[in-house]
Amino acid sequence: MLALKHVPIRSFNENIAYIHKDCSIYKVSNINSLTRIEIHGGEAPVFAFLQIVDNNKFVRPDELGLNTEAFKQMGLPEGAEVTLTLTPPAPSLAAVRRKIAGNVLSSDDYASIVDDISKHRYSNMDIASFLVAMNSFITPNEILDLAEALRGDKIIDWGTEEIVADYYCMDDIPGNKVDLIIAPIVAAYGLPMPKIISSSSTSGSGLIDTMRTLANIDVDTRNLKKQVLEKRGAIVNAEKVEICEAERIIAKIEKQNGLSTMECGIASLLANKLASGITHLLIDIPVGIRAKIKTSAEATHLRKLIEYVGDRLGLYIDVTITDGSEPIGAGVGPALEARDIIKVLKNKEDAPDDLREKALFMAGRILEFDSKLRGGQGYLVAKELLRSGKAFDAFDMILKAQGKIESPKLGHLTRDVVAEKDGTIVRINTAFIAKAALLAGAGQYAGAGIDLYRKTGDSVSAGDILYRIYSCNQNDFAFVTSMIESGKTGFDIE
Amino acid sequence: MLALKHVPIRSFNENIAYIHKDCSIYKVSNINSLTRIEIHGGEAPVFAFLQIVDNNKFVRPDELGLNTEAFKQMGLPEGAEVTLTLTPPAPSLAAVRRKIAGNVLSSDDYASIVDDISKHRYSNMDIASFLVAMNSFITPNEILDLAEALRGDKIIDWGTEEIVADYYCMDDIPGNKVDLIIAPIVAAYGLPMPKIISSSSTSGSGLIDTMRTLANIDVDTRNLKKQVLEKRGAIVNAEKVEICEAERIIAKIEKQNGLSTMECGIASLLANKLASGITHLLIDIPVGIRAKIKTSAEATHLRKLIEYVGDRLGLYIDVTITDGSEPIGAGVGPALEARDIIKVLKNKEDAPDDLREKALFMAGRILEFDSKLRGGQGYLVAKELLRSGKAFDAFDMILKAQGKIESPKLGHLTRDVVAEKDGTIVRINTAFIAKAALLAGAGQYAGAGIDLYRKTGDSVSAGDILYRIYSCNQNDFAFVTSMIESGKTGFDIE
Repeated sequence: MLALKHVPIRSFNENIAYIHKDCSIYKVSNINSLTRIEIHGGEAPVFAFLQIVDNNKFVRPDELGLNTEAFKQMGLPEGAEVTLTLTPPAPSLAAVRRKIAGNVLSSDDYASIVDDISKHRYSNMDIASFLVAMNSFITPNEILDLAEALRGDKIIDWGTEEIVADYYCMDDIPGNKVDLIIAPIVAAYGLPMPKIISSSSTSGSGLIDTMRTLANIDVDTRNLKKQVLEKRGAIVNAEKVEICEAERIIAKIEKQNGLSTMECGIASLLANKLASGITHLLIDIPVGIRAKIKTSAEATHLRKLIEYVGDRLGLYIDVTITDGSEPIGAGVGPALEARDIIKVLKNKEDAPDDLREKALFMAGRILEFDSKLRGGQGYLVAKELLRSGKAFDAFDMILKAQGKIESPKLGHLTRDVVAEKDGTIVRINTAFIAKAALLAGAGQYAGAGIDLYRKTGDSVSAGDILYRIYSCNQNDFAFVTSMIESGKTGFDIE
Repeated sequence: MLALKHVPIRSFNENIAYIHKDCSIYKVSNINSLTRIEIHGGEAPVFAFLQIVDNNKFVRPDELGLNTEAFKQMGLPEGAEVTLTLTPPAPSLAAVRRKIAGNVLSSDDYASIVDDISKHRYSNMDIASFLVAMNSFITPNEILDLAEALRGDKIIDWGTEEIVADYYCMDDIPGNKVDLIIAPIVAAYGLPMPKIISSSSTSGSGLIDTMRTLANIDVDTRNLKKQVLEKRGAIVNAEKVEICEAERIIAKIEKQNGLSTMECGIASLLANKLASGITHLLIDIPVGIRAKIKTSAEATHLRKLIEYVGDRLGLYIDVTITDGSEPIGAGVGPALEARDIIKVLKNKEDAPDDLREKALFMAGRILEFDSKLRGGQGYLVAKELLRSGKAFDAFDMILKAQGKIESPKLGHLTRDVVAEKDGTIVRINTAFIAKAALLAGAGQYAGAGIDLYRKTGDSVSAGDILYRIYSCNQNDFAFVTSMIESGKTGFDIE
């Protein structure tokens, strides 16, 4: 018996057990650090990987230390008596090896892999290996099997609602936060739309960061259900909603290691939507030379794959292919994007046209999920809900329900980037703008980002402002200005 | 500035930095746990991955904790002032992504990947991803580039020695520890043979475990050189010899995750031999239905690949293909194998014939690396060195130089497994015997293992002992006896 001890370290997904080098019960010399153990004494055994401690200050020889993740799972107080047994690698790792060797796996294989991941039996290395193996080869049926496995058993039940709608964009186009306009329009119409969003790693800032500047987003499943049933909408952090646990673990490792592929992304997406209880899903595939999907052919391939898997999962899916070659809206960065959204919802004169039009188009298609609506009426109905202020009211109700917060200030360090000559803007490099926003600090500070003054097609004179940079600290500001000072602006003027 | 603190945790390869959640300098809210940092203040920056500590007892807000690995690399005392900067993922990870996408990498790519790994800039996940990507596709030229990169700059210099020989077996055949007979024969002849061995994970026990029952094996590079130049032989632990640092890191992850392939194994092997200063290498490829290499065709493919890469690396390589279908010798397990080796070296009547013959054959081929020896004389010279006791004397000298130790006792829990009928043994299942030895505890306890009383071709009567099981504790003994009690013995009698 060892006494349980909480070692207050937050690791990255993995359960870690800390054992003293002179442990009174287990011979450390026979243990290497990737030894997997099973800890008994709680309701269910908890799996963990061992690390060795050389000093009594942290863990004594008669103690077993657990990091925060593992300690929580154990569900016992400090000092509780526990035993440990060595445990072999998770049985489903044999299936991962077969995948690495280039084989097609069965639905049972995917089910047991996902089950073992959700029980923390996979090391992060195991998960990365699984992802890389799937990266190199996966069939449409495997994507289906993976999606079903990832969905899991916890599914949000929306009772008698016939349509539970959502919108999802397959890429991070700078500034494109139409979700935050679509959701209130759909809510104002009366269709329930629970938006459960995860953090993104590719663009300067994600939907989650923009929403965080407007309201609290940490809402648990119970409050999410209550709010959506009452207010018809919610925009919340996926971290707090207890669905798709294995998918969350995998997604973190995918993002951190750049191991995501479109194919596995589809499985994750559809699993999440199914577990959220979504019945009708509008998927937006932006195509552009600097976007993830570069050609119509790729987009069509992806559309067919989504339809194939979605149909078999029983989801009603509408896929739309859009222009992903330009930023959407004016602001790129949390507070700037939030400002644009409020401008659109308040019908302000200077609200960005492209942002409003894209949102109305998408909201219209979602409204047409309702069989009571006459075909082709969705866009007009959406437009009227926006014009009348009903969409703004719905948004305000959602923000208040979640806990509205004061908008953060824009960064105090600014720099204007101007046109170097007279002419017409023929192209804006979205990757350049996304990188500039990231360097300016948009991923870290809500007030940082890029505010676009001009769009493609505009005529400019030398010296006209193309965009303004906002940063919240000197470090970020130095990074982004050195990028600009190399002579490039990201705008092609001819 | 943060004050350096040693957190006495031994992790698994990775450098880990522990930062308090209310760190006085860096905003933890902007950090996720796979954030990579560079720590400044020592001679060279040290890379580490961050974990967050929620409690002052371990690390205070004005401190930066480092695990044992990272603290050593830092080379500063506790309390020293250090700064940290966030650092992007290692640049060579872009090449890993290209490999994942199925591309051929250049020699520069491999050089920078290996360099970053040796500087601890790769997470274990990054390394696993790299391995899985190589598993799915690698060209012979890439194996060559990988081997050259893994060799590194630290190469043991054997001065004026013209031949520095070694023997390497590509598989773990139960009981096959011929290395420990070959080495003293070659030493007695006068050729230098520095055996630098790593731990194995597949068989019940490895060469390193057997040698550890006879002598100290933890010898550093300086003493290794001295010993080999004086005594012509050494059998030491690779962990203590400072060569191929990146390969060691990779090999651990390969073994722990079962990600090794023959192709990458060749790169690792040849890199290690080059860095050890080996000039002439005899490679043994055992073929057998239960072995890693199952057919002659596979063995021939492997042989050609080894010759292709070896030739271009400037190594003199002799490849021999042997029978890997049966255990070699009688004992399977550290102390039992050591007993067999001493029997052979002491010319005992009951020494296993197959072990002696295989060792003489291999030693003979190595002696023929010496151009002064007449072709075909190697085997006879080896046999005479063994018969005369000179090989035993050479072994004893090597053991004494490293620090001879008392042989461990055999396990006190024993069980005899007997023939169930009269007949002739037509086959011994090597995988069964290896697994039985492993369950008996041979991987953990030197005295545990399987002692084979009979070999293929022997006639037996019902009730004759086929083998005896030795275990050192009740747990292991219960495991192995339950395997036997299922009715199987691993022996086919017809």
